[in-house]
Amino acid sequence: MGDSKGVGPEVIVKALNSKSIKSLMPEFNFLIVGSDKTLAQTAKSLDIKFEPTPLRHSESRFSGAKNLSCDETLPTPRRGQGDSILDGNVSVFEPETKTTNPARLSVEYIIAAIELMKANKGAALVTGPVSKQAIQESGFPFIGHTELLAQKTVSRQVTMMFVAPQLKVSLATTHIAYRKVLLYLTLDKIVSTIEQTDEALRNYFGIAQPRLAVCGLNPHAGEGGKFGNEEAKIIKPAIDFARRRKIKVDGPFAPDSIFNQALKGSYDAVIAMYHDQGLIPIKTLAFAESVQLTLGLPFIRTSPAHGVAYDIAGKGIADPSSMIEALKLACSMAKANSPIL
Amino acid sequence: MGDSKGVGPEVIVKALNSKSIKSLMPEFNFLIVGSDKTLAQTAKSLDIKFEPTPLRHSESRFSGAKNLSCDETLPTPRRGQGDSILDGNVSVFEPETKTTNPARLSVEYIIAAIELMKANKGAALVTGPVSKQAIQESGFPFIGHTELLAQKTVSRQVTMMFVAPQLKVSLATTHIAYRKVLLYLTLDKIVSTIEQTDEALRNYFGIAQPRLAVCGLNPHAGEGGKFGNEEAKIIKPAIDFARRRKIKVDGPFAPDSIFNQALKGSYDAVIAMYHDQGLIPIKTLAFAESVQLTLGLPFIRTSPAHGVAYDIAGKGIADPSSMIEALKLACSMAKANSPIL
Repeated sequence: MGDSKGVGPEVIVKALNSKSIKSLMPEFNFLIVGSDKTLAQTAKSLDIKFEPTPLRHSESRFSGAKNLSCDETLPTPRRGQGDSILDGNVSVFEPETKTTNPARLSVEYIIAAIELMKANKGAALVTGPVSKQAIQESGFPFIGHTELLAQKTVSRQVTMMFVAPQLKVSLATTHIAYRKVLLYLTLDKIVSTIEQTDEALRNYFGIAQPRLAVCGLNPHAGEGGKFGNEEAKIIKPAIDFARRRKIKVDGPFAPDSIFNQALKGSYDAVIAMYHDQGLIPIKTLAFAESVQLTLGLPFIRTSPAHGVAYDIAGKGIADPSSMIEALKLACSMAKANSPIL
Repeated sequence: MGDSKGVGPEVIVKALNSKSIKSLMPEFNFLIVGSDKTLAQTAKSLDIKFEPTPLRHSESRFSGAKNLSCDETLPTPRRGQGDSILDGNVSVFEPETKTTNPARLSVEYIIAAIELMKANKGAALVTGPVSKQAIQESGFPFIGHTELLAQKTVSRQVTMMFVAPQLKVSLATTHIAYRKVLLYLTLDKIVSTIEQTDEALRNYFGIAQPRLAVCGLNPHAGEGGKFGNEEAKIIKPAIDFARRRKIKVDGPFAPDSIFNQALKGSYDAVIAMYHDQGLIPIKTLAFAESVQLTLGLPFIRTSPAHGVAYDIAGKGIADPSSMIEALKLACSMAKANSPIL
């Protein structure tokens, strides 16, 4: 559910009430890990009928997120409730907790959701927005959503990928200061970003032979070494390495030109060297509709690309587009990943 | 005209033959500084009727670009030639020269054009694409088009601005390696970029009180110092300085979000801290239609945003959109700048 003081509950309720998500409900059960009360209040303020099934559990087996049992059965479908969210199957699981701090609660929701995923209780995880700052201030040593997921699932390398309707971009480095990017941009990181992106496009997006483009680091990709040599020193060797593993990958390309080439269909995804290089084209083209995706975890995880937006929370004006797209993408990835679905 | 071996002559002939530029010909004379023969051959290969007026001059006064006289009169209009470029007023001036090297010739065209502009012979200068590498290999100590213009006009601070149909962006630093940007990104440079952008929007774009947005350098603009402190150390002080000069400027903003805000109309232009931060949104949104603009020169200068594209030159497939937009912008800026036009 994300942070109850942010826009998370609002975009969840709005998304579940949208036509495109309702149309997925015959096929998918939606379980919200969060606060029943917060969701009910949010739905009421939005004038949306919302009666999710509370996920029942014995107190002994669910004493806090950490001890979350794995043998809980998801609720059976509830149908025919008219024009409300209950057209489909929505339930809420509220982990037991001693805290009332909303930021700390948002962490417990994530941890409970991870436990459910590790126990194969879900086909995909969609995370609502949390505030890094608020969580840190609550005393929890939090680096980031993705980092917590990686740690709790013992995933060595993870890749942040962003999916917009027109463009897919993966990041070789993420939340790193401009001046420190060069310390984190290693051959190994670029190769694993290429590999995980290639694998995701094959497994989840139905692309048999993905075509990947890699950005340079410098203007004009260094223009033959005139404006920097990281292209020759790190990026080209990483591309060559990936090519030897039969990945179809080109570059390094001039960063200002390659996204347009990808938009025109020349490439299925672009590998960006740093956060803004990849996020500027994604958010400029598709601010509301872009979705974040974490590759390298043992399960599917998507997320809206926006934050908690405390400034507009509770006003009923939050745009649920990114949450809708995150849910849709999670469902389509889950389907691609499963011979049963 | 730019480099005769690049796409310059082709996009010029195509642009002058386009409806939107022809419609400007009743109001504007177009003088091409370049090779009559190259332009004629290009037009012939494109099957476009092209009979520009050669600009006549006495040998003594035009012995090379450097001695270009300033008292030459532009040709009188020639009208009524049917569906050819001569619907309007197009002439060609070929500087006398001893070289036949196309790259070196492209420099002499620029220098001759600068002399014409300094002598008030033109309302605006539009430059065709040249190859930095080819010019350097020809033995001329060339840093860049913009740098040559600045040097020949003794302009202390110039700003590269890019204009796309949806977005205007100015760059605080330009062709600098990623790792060296921090050495060039000074308070002074950010302030002059803000000031020259503000001035250009007032003088040339008819915006009485421009609203400017300044990007941060780091992801999320540093998120309160977590990912870098250049926002607090350099960028915010520059914004405060410009504000004291009554410029309406906000920031520093998260670089991945601010361009979308500008697209939605919240700002008239965005100030980017480095080349790709500004060029990625421009070229991703409007690869073919974006125009470069140099602020801080004693005259108006625009340029297509693309290069020589040697690989497609002479094939007749070059897209003239950027040259058309560069010409249109030059004309509209000239008009805004002159009470006579």
